[in-house]
Amino acid sequence: LSDTNSIETVSFVGSGNVATHLALALFKAGIGIKSVFSPNKLNADEFAEKFKCQVVSDITETAKSIDMLILAIPDSRVAEVCNSIPDNGTLVVHTSGINAMEALKSKSRYGVFYPLQTFSKERELDMKTVPFCLEANNNNDLQRMYELAKKISSNVHFVNSKKRKLLHLTAVMVSNFSNHLYHLSYDILESGGVSFDFLKPLIQETASKVEEIHPHKAQTGPARRNDITTLEEHMKMLSQFPEYQQVYKLLSEQIRKKFHE
Amino acid sequence: LSDTNSIETVSFVGSGNVATHLALALFKAGIGIKSVFSPNKLNADEFAEKFKCQVVSDITETAKSIDMLILAIPDSRVAEVCNSIPDNGTLVVHTSGINAMEALKSKSRYGVFYPLQTFSKERELDMKTVPFCLEANNNNDLQRMYELAKKISSNVHFVNSKKRKLLHLTAVMVSNFSNHLYHLSYDILESGGVSFDFLKPLIQETASKVEEIHPHKAQTGPARRNDITTLEEHMKMLSQFPEYQQVYKLLSEQIRKKFHE
Repeated sequence: LSDTNSIETVSFVGSGNVATHLALALFKAGIGIKSVFSPNKLNADEFAEKFKCQVVSDITETAKSIDMLILAIPDSRVAEVCNSIPDNGTLVVHTSGINAMEALKSKSRYGVFYPLQTFSKERELDMKTVPFCLEANNNNDLQRMYELAKKISSNVHFVNSKKRKLLHLTAVMVSNFSNHLYHLSYDILESGGVSFDFLKPLIQETASKVEEIHPHKAQTGPARRNDITTLEEHMKMLSQFPEYQQVYKLLSEQIRKKFHE
Repeated sequence: LSDTNSIETVSFVGSGNVATHLALALFKAGIGIKSVFSPNKLNADEFAEKFKCQVVSDITETAKSIDMLILAIPDSRVAEVCNSIPDNGTLVVHTSGINAMEALKSKSRYGVFYPLQTFSKERELDMKTVPFCLEANNNNDLQRMYELAKKISSNVHFVNSKKRKLLHLTAVMVSNFSNHLYHLSYDILESGGVSFDFLKPLIQETASKVEEIHPHKAQTGPARRNDITTLEEHMKMLSQFPEYQQVYKLLSEQIRKKFHE
């Protein structure tokens, strides 16, 4: 394969949420999925059937006869898994937000292909808007990865490891932590026999608002207004949920301080 | 005015975010806005010009010659302001999530007209999807309020004070607290010269996901996976933001416990 060829075939190590969504988008864009390796046999079989590819049971075989190997595996295992694959000159990339590109430095050609999104198998999503953060150890591969990413997303960027780590950290905050707030609200409403559906338009609007307005301007509510009476009343209501009361206290105090100190 | 007449004219006490958005929706639906009273003279003048109504400077005059008086004022002032208005038999409602309907019991006809949404003057919104939580001290007025609310929203419900308070509490959590997470992420990214725009598709998807999937199923990320290495790395990255580190610690621990204990 010449360096100037476009990436036409890939294989996956991993068959979880990220692997599945990425493979689907690539598959739909006409990229050949050659094989999948995964410790989870059930997931691997399902993946292989969906994308008409082979299940490989020996990890040392995964980088053969393809243009790019994608490691879509838990963040904590990237370096170790990469080291177990012999370098045959194939481009190897990881999809992790937190791992430096250098985690793959045992290979001669390597890079990062990080889609900044929350993926669940239960839910389809539009890959076109997903920001892809790319990095590579040589410009030829970076260019080829860019062309590949553009086939599935219109939101592709070159981002170094340091900036990508900041994005990963804040992604946890705006996504996992917000979802936790949805979760505890669900629990609280359920305890009072109230449907979570009531909150859905508010959740949507809160997210849409910061597309247009700075989060400082977008803030509303009792802590923003320094309305101590309401804050105290809410704290009292949460006495049967001591863990959620801690969340309420910490976040309200921080909001209040941001606007009133 | 007969009890069976529909509500055709209203006046406002208050000229803030809620008053402005509510008045706009009612105005567009052909409801007459007769007057506004507000301690904020500048806001009141702007409001009066926008909705072609009078500015009233004496609060005791506000309930005259209308079908319904709307108190769109800070939660902590509802009872006190209501008590300062003489009862002339006009229906008086508040728009507060936290106040019991009985805060208005000095009037002969009273109720609650609570739109569950985050309102900022800088941003237009579609009132049609906003849940309205209604309550009244008599069925005639409840019916009339229902018909009025249906003119501006297709999401109208009868909700008692206890359930409304739970909705208000959880609204603070999913909206104000999520927005605070957007705010601190904005600060963190800014410190590293990274654009907040990267996070917008993720914020949108996180909000859209819980429209379809239970928040428990929707959860992803390092705490969900019990990935201690990443959690520790993020904590280290936050050492220059001790307050945000506290948020990271508390919420990560709660997510981890929900899934791994």
